Amino acid sequence: MRARDLLEPFPTVELDSPVADAARLMAERDLPGLIVLDERGTPCSILPGTQVLRLAVPKYCQDDPALARVIDEAHADAFMRALGDRTVRQAMPERPKELPVTDPDATLLEVAALMARTRSPLVAVVERGRLLGAVTLNALMDRLAGT
Amino acid sequence: MRARDLLEPFPTVELDSPVADAARLMAERDLPGLIVLDERGTPCSILPGTQVLRLAVPKYCQDDPALARVIDEAHADAFMRALGDRTVRQAMPERPKELPVTDPDATLLEVAALMARTRSPLVAVVERGRLLGAVTLNALMDRLAGT
Repeated sequence: MRARDLLEPFPTVELDSPVADAARLMAERDLPGLIVLDERGTPCSILPGTQVLRLAVPKYCQDDPALARVIDEAHADAFMRALGDRTVRQAMPERPKELPVTDPDATLLEVAALMARTRSPLVAVVERGRLLGAVTLNALMDRLAGT
Repeated sequence: MRARDLLEPFPTVELDSPVADAARLMAERDLPGLIVLDERGTPCSILPGTQVLRLAVPKYCQDDPALARVIDEAHADAFMRALGDRTVRQAMPERPKELPVTDPDATLLEVAALMARTRSPLVAVVERGRLLGAVTLNALMDRLAGT
């Protein structure tokens, strides 16, 4: 079995898409993340949901749990509505060491190793610069559990 | 709004549970991870699905993508069925800096900051050592997207 046998269509966003749209898409479809396309339509990264949250959290609260605690409930709720006009580009994790992107001939072992190394719940499957779909953690877990 | 308003029941495993059972539970319910309880029934960690995959992947393939590539398809499939008798304890990430565990009075901002820092798609909510449930990335994303 290879990546091509497990891949499924997966929604994408562009680097300059509003991150609020990306959050809406993830929320509506219960997705763990999105595939990000560059200007040429080639997957350039994965945007994990946990990193979208970073944009809703002021920098000083991300670094220091005690500072998040002193902001009262009403203000905390307001921060959580404040994605504003920020773009996917701003939500991207800084300089990833390795991208969760593979080719359709990758074996399940390669996909699993890539997912484990990058801690990404989805891997984009790309052939000659064109996105074919994604292999999700759930699809691999189904294989692993034999369900 | 506080963690107690967003929490939901969430399945747990114990440190000595077979990791194959954990994989089956995640696969059946499409969960992004599980809450791990210690001997006293207190949450001691979160087991992300991507780390369960690590147990199915030989160490040398995790570190070196080229080595995963040379294992042929039939053997790769076999590795992916080979969780065997390994336990959740063996699947746990090494010495996490911070656990995604909070109390029911945490604001949404605190929960979001914790999820972003730990990159965990779920946060366990604990009161006096007792697990109340979890706040999931999807639940927070729904708030963020205003859906």
